[in-house]
Amino acid sequence: MANVEVPASHTDVLIVGTGPAGLMMATSLAKCGIDTRIIDKRGTKIFNGQADGLQCRTLEIFDSLGFGHRAWRESNHMLEIRLWNPDENGIIRLSDKIPDTLVGISRFQQVVLHQGRIERFFLDTIQECGGNPVGRGVLPTELHIDETLVDDSHAYPITVRVRHLSEKESTPDQTATSANGEAVQDGLFRSNLTPDDTHELIARAKLDSKANSEETIKAKYLLGADGAHSWVRRQLGFKLEGDSTDYIWGVLDIVPITNFLLKLLMNKQHFPDIRMRCAIHSASSGSVIVIPRENKLVRLYIQLTTTENAAEGGAAKADRSKISPETILASAQKIMAPYNITYRKLDWWTAYQIGQRVGTSFSAHERVFLAGDAVHTHSPKAGQGMNVSMQDTFNLAWKVASVVKGVSSRAILKTYQSERRRIAQDLIEFDHRFSRLFSGRPAKDVMDAEGVSMEEFKDAFVKGNLFASGIAVDYGASSIVAKAGETTDQGDGTEVSASAKFRVQSTQSLAPGIPVGKRMPSVKVLNQSDARPWHFQELLPSNGLWRIAFFVGDISRPSERQCAEAIGKAIDHEASFLRRYTSANARYDSGFEILAVHCAPRATTTIFDFHPVFRPYDELDGWDYAKIFVDEDSYHEGHGRIYETFEIDKSVGCAVVIRPDQYVSYVGAADYVESINKFFAGFMIPARETYRAALNNPDLDRD
Amino acid sequence: MANVEVPASHTDVLIVGTGPAGLMMATSLAKCGIDTRIIDKRGTKIFNGQADGLQCRTLEIFDSLGFGHRAWRESNHMLEIRLWNPDENGIIRLSDKIPDTLVGISRFQQVVLHQGRIERFFLDTIQECGGNPVGRGVLPTELHIDETLVDDSHAYPITVRVRHLSEKESTPDQTATSANGEAVQDGLFRSNLTPDDTHELIARAKLDSKANSEETIKAKYLLGADGAHSWVRRQLGFKLEGDSTDYIWGVLDIVPITNFLLKLLMNKQHFPDIRMRCAIHSASSGSVIVIPRENKLVRLYIQLTTTENAAEGGAAKADRSKISPETILASAQKIMAPYNITYRKLDWWTAYQIGQRVGTSFSAHERVFLAGDAVHTHSPKAGQGMNVSMQDTFNLAWKVASVVKGVSSRAILKTYQSERRRIAQDLIEFDHRFSRLFSGRPAKDVMDAEGVSMEEFKDAFVKGNLFASGIAVDYGASSIVAKAGETTDQGDGTEVSASAKFRVQSTQSLAPGIPVGKRMPSVKVLNQSDARPWHFQELLPSNGLWRIAFFVGDISRPSERQCAEAIGKAIDHEASFLRRYTSANARYDSGFEILAVHCAPRATTTIFDFHPVFRPYDELDGWDYAKIFVDEDSYHEGHGRIYETFEIDKSVGCAVVIRPDQYVSYVGAADYVESINKFFAGFMIPARETYRAALNNPDLDRD
Repeated sequence: MANVEVPASHTDVLIVGTGPAGLMMATSLAKCGIDTRIIDKRGTKIFNGQADGLQCRTLEIFDSLGFGHRAWRESNHMLEIRLWNPDENGIIRLSDKIPDTLVGISRFQQVVLHQGRIERFFLDTIQECGGNPVGRGVLPTELHIDETLVDDSHAYPITVRVRHLSEKESTPDQTATSANGEAVQDGLFRSNLTPDDTHELIARAKLDSKANSEETIKAKYLLGADGAHSWVRRQLGFKLEGDSTDYIWGVLDIVPITNFLLKLLMNKQHFPDIRMRCAIHSASSGSVIVIPRENKLVRLYIQLTTTENAAEGGAAKADRSKISPETILASAQKIMAPYNITYRKLDWWTAYQIGQRVGTSFSAHERVFLAGDAVHTHSPKAGQGMNVSMQDTFNLAWKVASVVKGVSSRAILKTYQSERRRIAQDLIEFDHRFSRLFSGRPAKDVMDAEGVSMEEFKDAFVKGNLFASGIAVDYGASSIVAKAGETTDQGDGTEVSASAKFRVQSTQSLAPGIPVGKRMPSVKVLNQSDARPWHFQELLPSNGLWRIAFFVGDISRPSERQCAEAIGKAIDHEASFLRRYTSANARYDSGFEILAVHCAPRATTTIFDFHPVFRPYDELDGWDYAKIFVDEDSYHEGHGRIYETFEIDKSVGCAVVIRPDQYVSYVGAADYVESINKFFAGFMIPARETYRAALNNPDLDRD
Repeated sequence: MANVEVPASHTDVLIVGTGPAGLMMATSLAKCGIDTRIIDKRGTKIFNGQADGLQCRTLEIFDSLGFGHRAWRESNHMLEIRLWNPDENGIIRLSDKIPDTLVGISRFQQVVLHQGRIERFFLDTIQECGGNPVGRGVLPTELHIDETLVDDSHAYPITVRVRHLSEKESTPDQTATSANGEAVQDGLFRSNLTPDDTHELIARAKLDSKANSEETIKAKYLLGADGAHSWVRRQLGFKLEGDSTDYIWGVLDIVPITNFLLKLLMNKQHFPDIRMRCAIHSASSGSVIVIPRENKLVRLYIQLTTTENAAEGGAAKADRSKISPETILASAQKIMAPYNITYRKLDWWTAYQIGQRVGTSFSAHERVFLAGDAVHTHSPKAGQGMNVSMQDTFNLAWKVASVVKGVSSRAILKTYQSERRRIAQDLIEFDHRFSRLFSGRPAKDVMDAEGVSMEEFKDAFVKGNLFASGIAVDYGASSIVAKAGETTDQGDGTEVSASAKFRVQSTQSLAPGIPVGKRMPSVKVLNQSDARPWHFQELLPSNGLWRIAFFVGDISRPSERQCAEAIGKAIDHEASFLRRYTSANARYDSGFEILAVHCAPRATTTIFDFHPVFRPYDELDGWDYAKIFVDEDSYHEGHGRIYETFEIDKSVGCAVVIRPDQYVSYVGAADYVESINKFFAGFMIPARETYRAALNNPDLDRD
């Protein structure tokens, strides 16, 4: 580093970028109690525009962080997709409708809410958890990694030099557009049609050095969640691989005034609605996607150049100066003819050229990580960008937290790239197919092989729906997912196996409805002690804890009761995962939560029918009533039928190991705790004090 | 007034008292945009203890104010009541269990949350609505009503002189109790076992006059929500009628450590749980009620003197000095023997003597109103006090708002006493029965006529459940409830009829499931424009608006379609209630919301199948998509079957007039809008500008 006479500080994790990916990381780490700093060169948060779709999996994650209900209440709910295609006369008409979210895949459905509100939920949660406030107007200028320290888990191998900007410097230039005389924000400053302004910011800051101060931050881990122009990625010298397409799209957030929902003009079969999500595919003018939003806003994604037009000009960047809300609206008008669309209120607009690229590597030494737009860029039309970006860091955060706390070995950090780079690759492939269907010309008839047929279009939507929901994510075999097969085949190629000694096999057939590698599905169960119904996922808040759920069957029968007792004894044993990896000074559920789900009659069962590991006792608080649940009809909220839904045999049961991010690591025999011990031994570090103490403490040996 | 040289200010409504009744008034008025001041002699809000039960009707009201979800999330949910009675050997045993909330009566169930959080929700909502902040440490010292002005709706006949207290003065003396060495708050300072401290506060404030300032507040309306010792009530010279009972009860909020849920001691039939609501009735030591709360807290209501004991000492006040957490726990221990109960954490405690009294009058000149404990006191065990108090002012607020705005005549204000004093009378009657069952000795056998039988006890709980839910409230006939019969018979005796000319009759048989006088019941319907399911009650937020819901049937059939069109024309007519009572300058739905619920197939219907009154157009915002709903299956949230549930004939339909507080005013023929015009003519004041303008405006005459 050039001159070292600047103040230095330490943090466990430094995050660059305060978009959804960065904020998800900061929030998740705050929930785990990890010291974190998050900085951004921009001076303010987003107030409107940007990404807006929230997948149902993202809502599940939000709920696990404590603010799912806020997103659910404030958002617009999209229930139905309507597909519009040209009829035999080349005039668009409604050709089909499908549910927006597949029925039954989640307790949430896809909704739309602007990014600014989502960032607000994160910021509020960070504050509630006592996390550090976001450092805005803080520009990273130099990155140094001390490679000699990367394997020492207590070291701070990362050094980042930052410059605190003045307010003026940290405010991006925005094109002043006006609608009805009012200035309107546009998103071009973040679009890939605009050159990156980082250099400019650095240059300006240097000029104004008196008004600024510098700081050196030493960190154990660094996250680059700093967007498509990622500064962190460029410091690492990593590349994005892939291409720009020829497709240019414009985005308008407007309160539309339209007769698009009038059927007067057309025949009786036409009855779409601007409050539904619509995919409109004109005969020769391109496509429009309609996304109804909160506060009567509607977002329109509008194709500005067709493939035919682009072919003439090649894949060159579009002429930015010719793009305005007026020209974008004119394109929409052409596509949606003979219907009219206009507006009096314009909230935000932007334009972009679709590029589909994936980062070559998501991590350097498992010390610096990249996430979100920094490692994958694609079309925004399927509403994936923000969701996948947040899910990147949701995947990463608990792993980093676990390593920082000394609970897990650094080896698990490799699974970040293995799991998330594979998702990014799948996403780009999906986006390729999806974008071509949208940007391509509709087929004129069945003989028109170059065009996109209506059937293909609908089929892609139906199949795309599951992908787009986020529920389909299925992490491959690794040290933290006990699945058969080669780990390199199932991820992005990274080797992430447990060593042979600790390799554990799931018995998926014990619970076909709980697929290993996917997120834990959810139905309602009742708390044994107070009969309150909970969605199973509500029992899995994101706070860094692993959960082991034992489906112990009908414990009113002697055999199941004996089995449950044996499980309790095995977990309570000095050599169990619970005793080995929970510190003696920590609370009984500081690392693992042991849950039981039984199906004996609730009224004739009490928590005292269970071994004490399922109802731990605390001197101040008495017994813990929140770990034992029953599969029974509720008074007011129906019957989840968890055994039936997840296909668990009531007389056999099973054990399910659930990661801190709700993904299923392992399904196996209920009473074979040894297998679970082996699983955790593959990557966890014994809490030595606890373990040694236990060996000398006869009380813990309850058998 | 003695010396007038103090600053004077004006407000529409002055509220004295910041308990739940006062805050409900302030919040509801803020939602209606009425200028309000709310003051309290106390310096701070409640942080723990006090009332805690929330009825399902209260949760519906909270939801209509925008914070039902906060209460629902933070509270403990009570699902089941367990009844304990002495067995043949005089030892308590579980005798029965019943659901805590009757199944199907509401989309919410009874929950428990401490009063401090509830007050926080109100305070947040007042702030969000731009209401005035609460004036704490403000002591009213003089009240003057100018009786010559009470009938002038524009006048400020109320003058209240107030003194701003110092922080020390406004902090009540609390008994310093300790549990495990920590000081614990008690509630004795608000208990009726403690003498009222208002005089003391006034005296102290006078002594310290330099540190204080005085102010005169002139108001159109005054609410006394200042508790059982109500200063406002005493200024009016109004009395509470009724008696104190001999029963003394103690309250402990503890984190219990108990084997009450162990069945080891007893035979297999015994399996209660401290996380259930329990009513424990010992053979000769009195009763305990167990209320499980949030954060592992449990509230115990413990009978301290049995009727036998009290009979010896008569109805004299209990000796306060002998009551402490230790003596209360000792009583609980005796009642719950042979089980043990103790605690390490004590959150709050109090003791009280049950008094059952109702105010002689709830209003002076319909200018000063009394609500909550100021006009009804009773036992807290059925969790009614806070709920009924909040519902008092929820009933009053929209009426006062409507009169202040000049929309309604002052005559409707009489319905406050008619409706709410009747409820208070019913409540006292209920409490008499309920308290006797709890405080009385259990019957030894079927021949023991003086004792309370187990059957009687259970029966009272089952019947009491509906009353306690708040859903049973059924307001009598009046100018704002179009019911048959004499208004004086159906309320507290106050004459509240509409004049004969405007008397309207409901046709209840058109919708037997929507009883006139009760709150609008709720099932899910879908928004026509975006297919989103809404609970019908979610369409009725508390903002002062009347709603008229037209159940127009299957409008794909010509007859129903013609009928819906005729309704639209009638509402759009210059002489309709909508045109007469909506100001020309105001938004189309500033006074009334016109809703339609149809049952034609959603996919082949659009909002353009409806007359424009159901889909008003705004130049900036386009069409209103939020007024037309359909009775159809949803993708993800089931089918409400609103026609079937409310027993509405699809080929006949009906019109339902719903008050701003969600109570049903009228059910009648869908297309007989004339009857609705007449109903509103009974108490509403025409918006003259609008009406006159309409007469000269041929455009409004759309026929």
